[in-house]
Amino acid sequence: MPTGHEHTVKAFDEEIGHLRALISQMGGLAEQGISDAMLALQRNDPTLAKEVRTADAKIDAIQAEVERLVVRVIALRAPMADDLREVVAALKIAAVVERIGDYAKNIAKRVPMIHQGEDRIEAVSLLPAMAQMASDMVHDVLDAFSARNAEAAVAVCERDRALDDFYDSIFRTLVTFMVENPRTIGQVAHLLFVAKNLERIGDHATNVAEMVYFAATGRYLADREPAEPSDL
Amino acid sequence: MPTGHEHTVKAFDEEIGHLRALISQMGGLAEQGISDAMLALQRNDPTLAKEVRTADAKIDAIQAEVERLVVRVIALRAPMADDLREVVAALKIAAVVERIGDYAKNIAKRVPMIHQGEDRIEAVSLLPAMAQMASDMVHDVLDAFSARNAEAAVAVCERDRALDDFYDSIFRTLVTFMVENPRTIGQVAHLLFVAKNLERIGDHATNVAEMVYFAATGRYLADREPAEPSDL
Repeated sequence: MPTGHEHTVKAFDEEIGHLRALISQMGGLAEQGISDAMLALQRNDPTLAKEVRTADAKIDAIQAEVERLVVRVIALRAPMADDLREVVAALKIAAVVERIGDYAKNIAKRVPMIHQGEDRIEAVSLLPAMAQMASDMVHDVLDAFSARNAEAAVAVCERDRALDDFYDSIFRTLVTFMVENPRTIGQVAHLLFVAKNLERIGDHATNVAEMVYFAATGRYLADREPAEPSDL
Repeated sequence: MPTGHEHTVKAFDEEIGHLRALISQMGGLAEQGISDAMLALQRNDPTLAKEVRTADAKIDAIQAEVERLVVRVIALRAPMADDLREVVAALKIAAVVERIGDYAKNIAKRVPMIHQGEDRIEAVSLLPAMAQMASDMVHDVLDAFSARNAEAAVAVCERDRALDDFYDSIFRTLVTFMVENPRTIGQVAHLLFVAKNLERIGDHATNVAEMVYFAATGRYLADREPAEPSDL
């Protein structure tokens, strides 16, 4: 029979495993949200856009569950050092993934506003590649969390600069498009916000990477500025 | 002499008091950040804009302190019911105030981009009134938290709709301004983001209001949709 201590350790491991599974599930929903929102945008599909909002409500519910579980684990087990770092990381990562879900929802909500005029906004075609880049960062950083892989987390951080550059270039292109097609300014302004949301998703993936690194190593990702939103 | 139980209660009350003081301090810095960022924007004052970024780093540091204190209180005292709700609310409110600070910083970072052209952007003058409205919501909701005043929290929620309407009207005005002044589109696009940041500050004040209500009453602010970003 297990001793009392072994029993506690086992229960804690199970709780951590449950936390990881919940966060994985949130991450999967968030990735799906990003890709559905972009598809809805390209196809002008209001039904799919609405589904993104429903999926976001699921993400919110799982986040609330993570929160309750974290508080219970801290109160019952008073974990120390590595274990505490891990539990707190789970709490914070869940909060960030919830925000990523909000960005996907926000993109979905702009679909009708972007397609409201008679003009087809060619500039829409710029965004899916950027969305894929952001979504891949989210995917890879949650994999890094699952695997407690600090190096994989660092690799995600390093991709944020490319995403920021992509955003800056899209910002300039959209402004030029507006200058040349003044009738579409209202619609393209919404596209600017979509691009910004994607850029912010990358910032959040980077924040998660920093948390994964800290949870896995106990050190801060030094020699690196904290993730800043792009200047544009 | 106090009994052991009284001693624990007193220590807990002191910790809660300390948490409240830290959040108050964060709130004051966030309000100052919003007002300094707007002043920097109106006056094109890069020095003041830089100060907003320094103040934001202070907010981040206080948030980290709140987090450590909350985890310690939960682990040491395993608070129940009302007490637990209050401690968790402090954690969540600190996270939201940190985001409000980020929005102020983001506004400050756009100052040079908005003033980069030769044209004076008259549209800048639209924003201070909106900023004041958002900043007042932040102020009042943190007062409501300090006073555990659920009714004051509800009153803050009710002001979010007016802020959203203000934002929608500014969005339309800025789009019109861009159509009429195509040379300024790049600069005015940054103003759109500033207006959006202010609208989001109102959403976050509303989220805090919901947390204050829940912490004070144990009930969710029912008959009310969760705060949604404006559709524009």
